[in-house]
Amino acid sequence: METKSLEITTENLSEDLLNKINAYWRAANYLSVGQIYLHENPLLREPLKPEHIKKMLLGHWGTTPGQNFIYVHLNRIIKKYDLDMIYVSGPGHGGPAIVGNVYLEGTYSEVYPNISQDEEGLRKLFKQFSFPGGIPSHVSPECPGSIHEGGELGYSLSHAFGAAFDNPNLIVSCVVGDGEAETGPLATAWHSNKFLNPVTDGVVLPILHLNGYKIANPTILARIGDEELEQLFLGYGWKPYVIEGDDPMEMHQQMAILLDKVIGEIKAIKENAAKDKNAARPKWPMIILKSPKGWTGPKFVDGKKIEGNFLAHQVPIKDPATNPEHLKQLADWLRSYKPEELFDNNGRLNSELQELAPSGKHRMGDNPNANGGLLLQNLRMPDFRDYGVEMKRGQLGSGDTLVLGKFIRDIIKANIEQRNFRIFGPDETLSNKLDFVFEATDRQWEAPVIDTDDFLKKEGRVMEMLSEHQCEGWLEGYLLTGRHGLFNCYEAFIHIIDSMFNQHAKWLKVTSHLPWRRKIASLNILLASHVWRQDHNGFTHQDPGFLDVVMNKKASVVRVYLPPDANCLLSVMDHCFRSRQYVNVTVAGKHPAPQWLSMDEAVVHCTKGIGIWPWASNDKDVEPDVVMACAGDVPTLETLAAVSILREHLPELKVRVVNVVDLMKLQPETEHPHGLNTKDFDTLFTEDKPVIFAFHGYPWLIHRLTYKRNNHVNFHVRGYKEEGTITTPFDMTVLNEMDRYHLVMDTLDRLPQLKNKTAYLKQEMQDKLIIHKNYIRKEGMDMPEIRNWKWEVLES
Amino acid sequence: METKSLEITTENLSEDLLNKINAYWRAANYLSVGQIYLHENPLLREPLKPEHIKKMLLGHWGTTPGQNFIYVHLNRIIKKYDLDMIYVSGPGHGGPAIVGNVYLEGTYSEVYPNISQDEEGLRKLFKQFSFPGGIPSHVSPECPGSIHEGGELGYSLSHAFGAAFDNPNLIVSCVVGDGEAETGPLATAWHSNKFLNPVTDGVVLPILHLNGYKIANPTILARIGDEELEQLFLGYGWKPYVIEGDDPMEMHQQMAILLDKVIGEIKAIKENAAKDKNAARPKWPMIILKSPKGWTGPKFVDGKKIEGNFLAHQVPIKDPATNPEHLKQLADWLRSYKPEELFDNNGRLNSELQELAPSGKHRMGDNPNANGGLLLQNLRMPDFRDYGVEMKRGQLGSGDTLVLGKFIRDIIKANIEQRNFRIFGPDETLSNKLDFVFEATDRQWEAPVIDTDDFLKKEGRVMEMLSEHQCEGWLEGYLLTGRHGLFNCYEAFIHIIDSMFNQHAKWLKVTSHLPWRRKIASLNILLASHVWRQDHNGFTHQDPGFLDVVMNKKASVVRVYLPPDANCLLSVMDHCFRSRQYVNVTVAGKHPAPQWLSMDEAVVHCTKGIGIWPWASNDKDVEPDVVMACAGDVPTLETLAAVSILREHLPELKVRVVNVVDLMKLQPETEHPHGLNTKDFDTLFTEDKPVIFAFHGYPWLIHRLTYKRNNHVNFHVRGYKEEGTITTPFDMTVLNEMDRYHLVMDTLDRLPQLKNKTAYLKQEMQDKLIIHKNYIRKEGMDMPEIRNWKWEVLES
Repeated sequence: METKSLEITTENLSEDLLNKINAYWRAANYLSVGQIYLHENPLLREPLKPEHIKKMLLGHWGTTPGQNFIYVHLNRIIKKYDLDMIYVSGPGHGGPAIVGNVYLEGTYSEVYPNISQDEEGLRKLFKQFSFPGGIPSHVSPECPGSIHEGGELGYSLSHAFGAAFDNPNLIVSCVVGDGEAETGPLATAWHSNKFLNPVTDGVVLPILHLNGYKIANPTILARIGDEELEQLFLGYGWKPYVIEGDDPMEMHQQMAILLDKVIGEIKAIKENAAKDKNAARPKWPMIILKSPKGWTGPKFVDGKKIEGNFLAHQVPIKDPATNPEHLKQLADWLRSYKPEELFDNNGRLNSELQELAPSGKHRMGDNPNANGGLLLQNLRMPDFRDYGVEMKRGQLGSGDTLVLGKFIRDIIKANIEQRNFRIFGPDETLSNKLDFVFEATDRQWEAPVIDTDDFLKKEGRVMEMLSEHQCEGWLEGYLLTGRHGLFNCYEAFIHIIDSMFNQHAKWLKVTSHLPWRRKIASLNILLASHVWRQDHNGFTHQDPGFLDVVMNKKASVVRVYLPPDANCLLSVMDHCFRSRQYVNVTVAGKHPAPQWLSMDEAVVHCTKGIGIWPWASNDKDVEPDVVMACAGDVPTLETLAAVSILREHLPELKVRVVNVVDLMKLQPETEHPHGLNTKDFDTLFTEDKPVIFAFHGYPWLIHRLTYKRNNHVNFHVRGYKEEGTITTPFDMTVLNEMDRYHLVMDTLDRLPQLKNKTAYLKQEMQDKLIIHKNYIRKEGMDMPEIRNWKWEVLES
Repeated sequence: METKSLEITTENLSEDLLNKINAYWRAANYLSVGQIYLHENPLLREPLKPEHIKKMLLGHWGTTPGQNFIYVHLNRIIKKYDLDMIYVSGPGHGGPAIVGNVYLEGTYSEVYPNISQDEEGLRKLFKQFSFPGGIPSHVSPECPGSIHEGGELGYSLSHAFGAAFDNPNLIVSCVVGDGEAETGPLATAWHSNKFLNPVTDGVVLPILHLNGYKIANPTILARIGDEELEQLFLGYGWKPYVIEGDDPMEMHQQMAILLDKVIGEIKAIKENAAKDKNAARPKWPMIILKSPKGWTGPKFVDGKKIEGNFLAHQVPIKDPATNPEHLKQLADWLRSYKPEELFDNNGRLNSELQELAPSGKHRMGDNPNANGGLLLQNLRMPDFRDYGVEMKRGQLGSGDTLVLGKFIRDIIKANIEQRNFRIFGPDETLSNKLDFVFEATDRQWEAPVIDTDDFLKKEGRVMEMLSEHQCEGWLEGYLLTGRHGLFNCYEAFIHIIDSMFNQHAKWLKVTSHLPWRRKIASLNILLASHVWRQDHNGFTHQDPGFLDVVMNKKASVVRVYLPPDANCLLSVMDHCFRSRQYVNVTVAGKHPAPQWLSMDEAVVHCTKGIGIWPWASNDKDVEPDVVMACAGDVPTLETLAAVSILREHLPELKVRVVNVVDLMKLQPETEHPHGLNTKDFDTLFTEDKPVIFAFHGYPWLIHRLTYKRNNHVNFHVRGYKEEGTITTPFDMTVLNEMDRYHLVMDTLDRLPQLKNKTAYLKQEMQDKLIIHKNYIRKEGMDMPEIRNWKWEVLES
């Protein structure tokens, strides 16, 4: 860590500095209360009247003064040691605190000139808070300096670590609320310290803010006693420091001394690690700040205890506009901060207080790490075409993700100096067959390693912890601070982070409309080990519904890809790694499976996102009798097998095969930027011919995407319908009636003109299914006929 | 706790008992290896040949011997102290261990007579494992004694606590895997001990099985050192006991003595708590078992370390059928357990070993708590009609969930002695306005209470921890052991448990087909604080997509209700509380909102689930010109306001209002048991008239449900489309174009015959929207016109 003053001093604040820090804190508290209450009269230049009060009082006071306290003290050490620091606000509804501080330090007015540093700006600052069309009570994307909104609790610490990886000079101060600390994701995120390299990564300084209460309840950590509290964090591998009290001046002194000490320890840890490559995992310091909820707010309202009680959570005085006594209480509360001492005649923070804040990019609101797009460098990319597989159509490949692994391996190599690409996964990177990445790197791991361990090093590009929440949260933090990455996960278990995905997609949507927020790299999710290939896991591991969750989010920020083979997967992933500001979800197989397209064909196909496969179709120059459509590797396999049966038995039948890689192509162009226009869609799918669609996910997703299309009434979709168990790959398709034999029967059912000619074929399909059932029950595997399917007819 | 022998003795096992326990363990290990490998020759009566080996080797050996070890030792103490105990197997893929043990104790053959206790039964037992159509490698619903499959990791401890609540004589032994322990939900579940009442609840005995590795990595807890490990669990409030080793005989002695000691401590805690009502929260004992992964399996294969390494995770010897050396190694491994000493001539476990297992319902496989439907008692239910509100149509109620609270309060009162009903929520029971329940009960809380706390007691029916995972997991455990409950949650954040819902729905689907599994009470989820009313939370709190996740699951186990007002909510919840084997999701408002139906009308409407509201329609005896449909409280409000505009301005227009309470009614009867048949659907929605549908959730869900309907092409659906911020309730509908004015315009757009007559009305609607925008930007609240809408025209 580079610090201006390498000399760490821990001594009491001078009287002057103490008073100034307290004044700065009062100013921040004043701004917080003002945001919650004031519509007019922002500096209380006239006596407070009912008409100055907002008509709807919305906001959360409880967490605010504590966060203001932390912020001013962090400002002090940033300035003193010339630190590079960002602030992650974990507790919900910390908005008034962070917005107020970013305003005081000047960043807010630079980003939003309309919210100027004067009385009029103050008035607007107050009015916009929790006001229609204004800003929410969270530390939302609109707040400069924020990479973490905190609307949904639990991810602050994961985000903070994500921000710290590969940022060796950055300190991420992460305020964790004691409510948030009860969530599962937060409870396991404390273990992130086993993955942080003290030399090559930055620092996370957790500040657990124990203000005692959540909405209506005390918090667990506030009631377990000091001994257990300390043991818990020692057990998590931290060195906890407790600071507790409610007297501001005493607390300022305590906090100042503690922060000096903590910075000293951080510096010592980093220096020691730089010197001794075999140093044991350090015990990083953390702070437990015990301060009253709603500190400095009203002690009692109507005889009920407010400060230091859960009743301080939201708006402590509820009806000042209509209750004169409460109006007076609010006025007294606001005046207790002595605004007349804090702001000058123009309504700007006094210049001697302004000096307390860091300047320029050292201001936490202006730190470019919190607007990661500013720092984002393109990845150095090898040419994905070089990794393409030679293929004979229908011949088994080595496993699509295995092929992808070589490409990713070389992305890792090419960016090893940039240090801006990481892979995250819950102990599944090998299971998902990205084996080759370990030729270029290791798993980063700061705990002891023994001889028999594989690919575990203090530094590596792969982050594996058995927590999808951590993988997602780390990656989000990594991306939000301007880097690139990949999350690989079992398809069924990506649902574990549905809500995190939702929140990230919402963040992307909002930031897309904020010109000062630069675009960040896309969040790339690779779902190998998908629903159709859970041969030894069964029903619990079968769920393709994440795609449905993804499709609910704004079309402008989500993309779903279903590459049918290895060359297509390479092409898709190349695109994903280059893209910005999306969530890209790619589903791919890891088992050896038939390959269909040459590299050149794959590039053309994936660039279009959807297309006819002419070599599998026999409708050249004529309108087809039926369209056989497919999306996903297993559905493509079954569709092509069905087509080969149809073409063998009914050579006069004109069959068109359409493969979909980019699911968004199916939507109308008015719904999604990738959507096909009506003409192109109708050209592919015809206006009136039956469409037999084999789909990777739940079948109704295809209906949802195509219900506005002209030919929708003729769409017949097969997909996963919650039937499954331990069984063979082919039997899975049979259980869900998406197998080749069902697809043939579905086709015949929709071609009544052929009924007399095809009754025998339908019977044969039914017989095949019975023979199949008998065979696997006896042998435990698919029939050789299925495994060694003859594809020749397709190209005849 | 009632124990046969109240005398706790801790002494070394006798030589005889030690040998028997070890033999029993060998038998369980033998069965586990047999399940993974053997197709024939289950007792090795002839030399092992390639044709005896399964063709596909699937399964997980790693966790198995440790779990077998635990099981036999738990059997000993159950028998010794006459305990009532169930076993929760947290580590993934523990199937071979638990299935084997349940077979050894006799339960398996009682439930599945085909898997008999003889050589032929053994052969079938082995064959079915991880075999198509057989049983999965998890402790799936097919396994007697299981309430926890473990396919998706992280919920064992929450399930265990759910099982223990209100089960004062039950001990739930919960084996937690060290991989699973890295997940967020598990990491916070350790704090459940702050919610367990030692008098009125049972006991959870966690056994953290530190075998060191997950799939391909060491685990965090295995590498943090003994000191941190102990501190962590002390910090979590447990009293941890570590037992470590790999010598079976020493480990048996250690484990036996430790379990005696632990049972003694549990007994002492319960006795002390019964005597001293003010006793501090006890420090319950827990066990940390450190044993090698793949214990007793091959030490090395092909020179690679297997036992005690991550390579023991799945199948340690991969190709015994084709590699003679490996075949010999497998044969040696199997014979190392000396099956000839363990099983008699018929292939049944020797009778002296059989005696080690408990008998009857004391067998963990046969404990009725693990087949909760056996114990399920109906709730005593007050008549929900008594809680109905008097209403004048359109008049504001007090908040629908507030009304519901009185009904639930009295359900709590009526069942206070049965002790079989609980409410779970992440600190939101008050926020969701179920205030009245606190007239009947409190929040259960085993940590200190101070004067200013509200409704916190050592015993109460409300369980609140700020973790949706815990709420869901506790409730699942509570239901699976035969009780009833409700989970209340903010709508957006129910996505946090998407994957838990998925797994529970899968469990319900599978158990529905197991005749010996009795039906359990439905899992009732109440989503108050929904997408449309996040006035002070904004975009992060707006997500109705859980409904999409729910609808992906089997129609036989999921239900979604959208009651439009308080009386309907009462009727719906009464139904939900009486139902079995479903997940019922109900979305309801908590804010004062207009009421529409009398109690009698509500009962009729909710019983049908969908229906015409004649008082709002003017299409009596004629075909309507337009159908205005709605589902959800806010959409219903906007629809009726739109209808009132249309009827005022265009009295000749025939408008039909259809309200949907039961979303499943929209699906075809072939897709869902609640689905309307074609005739009924067409009667409601017509075959060719425009349908303007205002929907609570994402609009495409309605399309997905109705795309097969005759009139689908005329469905125009409005709903949430990811537009939102801090704003007023009405403005939220405007942002998403579901407000009354848009609905009127939508209607006019679909009635081209009226175009000339209605241009003025469309213009007026557009003007209204502009006026609205201006008003709220200035005043911060909705216009009085919106708040005080005139409903008279509806009943004119």
